[in-house]
Amino acid sequence: MAVLARIERVRADVHAASLDAFVVTHLPNIRYLTGFTGTAGAVVLLPDTCVLMVDFRYVTAAQALVASLQTGAIVVETVPNTYDAAIVDLLRRESCRRIGIEAAWLSVSRFNAMSSDLAGGAPTPLRADGPTPVLVATDRIVERARMIKDLSEIETIREGGRRISGIARRLRDFVAVGRREDEIAAELDAAIRGAGFSRPAFDTIVASGPNSALPHARPTERRLHAGDSTVLDFGGVYDGYCVDLTRTVQLGAPSEALRQIYEAVARAHQAAVAAVRPGVRPSVIDAAARDVLVQHGLGEAFGHGTGHGIGLEIHEDPRIARESPGLPDQPVEPGMIFTIEPGAYVPDTGGVRIEDDVLVTADGCELLTDAPRLMMIDV
Amino acid sequence: MAVLARIERVRADVHAASLDAFVVTHLPNIRYLTGFTGTAGAVVLLPDTCVLMVDFRYVTAAQALVASLQTGAIVVETVPNTYDAAIVDLLRRESCRRIGIEAAWLSVSRFNAMSSDLAGGAPTPLRADGPTPVLVATDRIVERARMIKDLSEIETIREGGRRISGIARRLRDFVAVGRREDEIAAELDAAIRGAGFSRPAFDTIVASGPNSALPHARPTERRLHAGDSTVLDFGGVYDGYCVDLTRTVQLGAPSEALRQIYEAVARAHQAAVAAVRPGVRPSVIDAAARDVLVQHGLGEAFGHGTGHGIGLEIHEDPRIARESPGLPDQPVEPGMIFTIEPGAYVPDTGGVRIEDDVLVTADGCELLTDAPRLMMIDV
Repeated sequence: MAVLARIERVRADVHAASLDAFVVTHLPNIRYLTGFTGTAGAVVLLPDTCVLMVDFRYVTAAQALVASLQTGAIVVETVPNTYDAAIVDLLRRESCRRIGIEAAWLSVSRFNAMSSDLAGGAPTPLRADGPTPVLVATDRIVERARMIKDLSEIETIREGGRRISGIARRLRDFVAVGRREDEIAAELDAAIRGAGFSRPAFDTIVASGPNSALPHARPTERRLHAGDSTVLDFGGVYDGYCVDLTRTVQLGAPSEALRQIYEAVARAHQAAVAAVRPGVRPSVIDAAARDVLVQHGLGEAFGHGTGHGIGLEIHEDPRIARESPGLPDQPVEPGMIFTIEPGAYVPDTGGVRIEDDVLVTADGCELLTDAPRLMMIDV
Repeated sequence: MAVLARIERVRADVHAASLDAFVVTHLPNIRYLTGFTGTAGAVVLLPDTCVLMVDFRYVTAAQALVASLQTGAIVVETVPNTYDAAIVDLLRRESCRRIGIEAAWLSVSRFNAMSSDLAGGAPTPLRADGPTPVLVATDRIVERARMIKDLSEIETIREGGRRISGIARRLRDFVAVGRREDEIAAELDAAIRGAGFSRPAFDTIVASGPNSALPHARPTERRLHAGDSTVLDFGGVYDGYCVDLTRTVQLGAPSEALRQIYEAVARAHQAAVAAVRPGVRPSVIDAAARDVLVQHGLGEAFGHGTGHGIGLEIHEDPRIARESPGLPDQPVEPGMIFTIEPGAYVPDTGGVRIEDDVLVTADGCELLTDAPRLMMIDV
């Protein structure tokens, strides 16, 4: 019944914003609030009910889902034509006046068309009293709730972390001199599915030698050479929830410059994990990693943030990054789950990244992924 | 140099709408106008230049791309912070006043933030003269241009069609009694990659027996039985362009009811293909297929449209469907490429769909996919 608590939490925020309806159009947010997993849908949250709107493809599944909750808190409505027409019709039937929409997830054209339908000639006539209904842009209402994982979410991600760690512990089976990056990536994808994930959580990265110095490399036809560092960044979706892990495997002895990068990144990773506890701001966790890399002369070589939330999406709040105008930097809280993934990328030398997933606990954090942080293969 | 002609065509529409800038944020539209294939970017089309904005990850690739065009028509700008801040800065530097945005592809929150930045306190001060800049919602400007494929696009899709047809011709190698739907789907995906496609164009459908009666089925663990019809709907992305094909394979003799469905769908497919020529409205092509199915008592069993455009995206204009308010029904023109995919889905009996890709020519159409339309396997 986790969804009922989620609905109540979001409804409180909606009420606090003086809205009498909230239209949810972002699929991960719809799944979060109702458990519905279809590829199209909408939720209209009203003061005393939560309407899950689905089209003909999903009516049976949605009704079964709602029946399994054994509560009247969610009702299913079937969309006869377009979602937006059905939403407007419901809002008019319910005489809603201040209607929140998810500004980050509604296009200008949908906003304009729905606004104009609400104000004008839609089928149900407006009541003569009261002002014209207005759509109000809201910012990340459901995303804020999603930052704090509930017990069922934590257990799911913990299990995903166990399974992805199992693959990470046998990376030696995948990486060898002469093998191609894209071939290794395809085998990792198969291993991810084989481990019970429904799919990889993002395009698997296998970046070797010079490619390892590109933080966002895609697998190429390059074959691995002795001396290469190879960054392997992969994740899976387990029961709807994403996990994300990176290890860098060294083939044969690294150059002295590369050895120092490994050492610096491992220390940065350790420092950031050690900094995670309730009340600490994300920028402070980021600084814990960044300061170590700066001390090793690798400040410029670390061009991305230290981590990001994971959950129903692979990139969620909180962002673990430098303080920056417009970026929230609210202290982390128990129940948050995010990655810690410092890296350093030096052209002509190579790149190293180490990434684990952590859960903020009452007094620190729990590592949800577990595999050797440094892996060397003799060649 | 196809992109230069595309830019000119879109620029004419932008000029006709009295806009002095056009901000393109939809990635397939950015690729269409510039050839850029990164996972983030923006285009600002100005009266005498086309600015391709990319972040640090893509600067080298974007500059190489633009240099290869050997023209000054496209220039690359690097985004220092966020895309939206860089876009606003450029629009202010160029003193743009009426700025088109892609309403279908810009969120309300980005629209609001950019509007307020343009009106207010952004770094470059506004010139004292002239009105406040305004963002204007535009509708499918680039999408309309993309409907008519140019020669290089036609050749790419033709080659994709040849390759996907090669897989369709050997569907007997995949389908057999006792095999699982999800296992067949995984093998088809591997075959698609093996045929030179960068990836499947969508989630491959393998729907057997009762599942074949669900038009949007996902592969399950169900094993194929004698007597099953099995719908196989698959596609690939070849050099950025999507192709899409469906065949229904019959395992052993069909029931009489199922045999009649095969016959009706094959005739509906043939009738729709025969109806395609310049000047015909999409609803007329749809009716050609639908009328045949209605005559066979299968009107209700055909719950979707007859086809959709393909190109940089798997679903594009034109939509080949019944006339409906708000849906454009402009006559098809030479250079359009779309699917013809009638189907009929009868619970307890089974489903059949046959799909090919067609190019509208000067006096009819060319089939871009070619494989036997009816395939029976003895069991």
